Amino acid sequence: MTQLTSIGFDDLAIDQTASYSKTLTEADLVLFAATSGDVNPVHLDAEFAAGTVFGERIGHGMWLGALVSAAIATQLPGPGSVYRSQSLQFKQPVKLGDTATVTLTVTGLKARMKLVTLACSVTNQNGVVLAKGEADVIAPAAGGTLQAPDLPAITID
Amino acid sequence: MTQLTSIGFDDLAIDQTASYSKTLTEADLVLFAATSGDVNPVHLDAEFAAGTVFGERIGHGMWLGALVSAAIATQLPGPGSVYRSQSLQFKQPVKLGDTATVTLTVTGLKARMKLVTLACSVTNQNGVVLAKGEADVIAPAAGGTLQAPDLPAITID
Repeated sequence: MTQLTSIGFDDLAIDQTASYSKTLTEADLVLFAATSGDVNPVHLDAEFAAGTVFGERIGHGMWLGALVSAAIATQLPGPGSVYRSQSLQFKQPVKLGDTATVTLTVTGLKARMKLVTLACSVTNQNGVVLAKGEADVIAPAAGGTLQAPDLPAITID
Repeated sequence: MTQLTSIGFDDLAIDQTASYSKTLTEADLVLFAATSGDVNPVHLDAEFAAGTVFGERIGHGMWLGALVSAAIATQLPGPGSVYRSQSLQFKQPVKLGDTATVTLTVTGLKARMKLVTLACSVTNQNGVVLAKGEADVIAPAAGGTLQAPDLPAITID
């Protein structure tokens, strides 16, 4: 079981930050291709990708968006958040084996709607910015802790 | 093999549209949880989700973003596109069994950079808007057709 902690609106403050990291494995890339349906060979075929401007297979840009959404949903504000909007600018490709780190920073708080604005940045293990953007999220009224179910085992042939 | 066709910048026109549909299966939801790391029980635990405002398990909001990115990468402009930016407003939750249809419409063309602006809308099988936004994409210089590799078989226990 994974324990997830949410932060209630009243416990959020401007400049509060959280981070979330994930390394792009072959499995992550294949699962993103499957769930989205984006089967472009630049992501899946090493020989094809070698002939592109990237020179090697790259991850899906929106996989970085998926990590940003996971950071919001699991870290800041965490479970119970309601996603309102997200902007993303894609700066550099994410490559297999890269560790992408999402950093969220609270930049706005509107108490009436419990609306939180977050600056979102995704960097790789070398500090290169892969993507950045902004999110608007409705925070949970109160914080708390819950158990996340384990995922079923996934096997890729 | 899946055949993918790209549209070169010079063959794009304002108001040109394309669409892309996917039905949210249990497998898609689990694979998105795995690749993103968002294991919130509102997505994975039916009993927990029944006690939330949604009343049932919902898909991840950013799964809709993944579909938008797949629509761009496979349909309009298709393979060879370079994703520059995406905005998304999340309007309604996507539920298991929903068929989400992404509609892309060309709203801007800047020849110097081969930059295409796309209005992006995602609706469910009842015509309800689940998400909408805008994308900026650099189109391929020329169109063409290529074969996408088949994905390996994925088994979920």
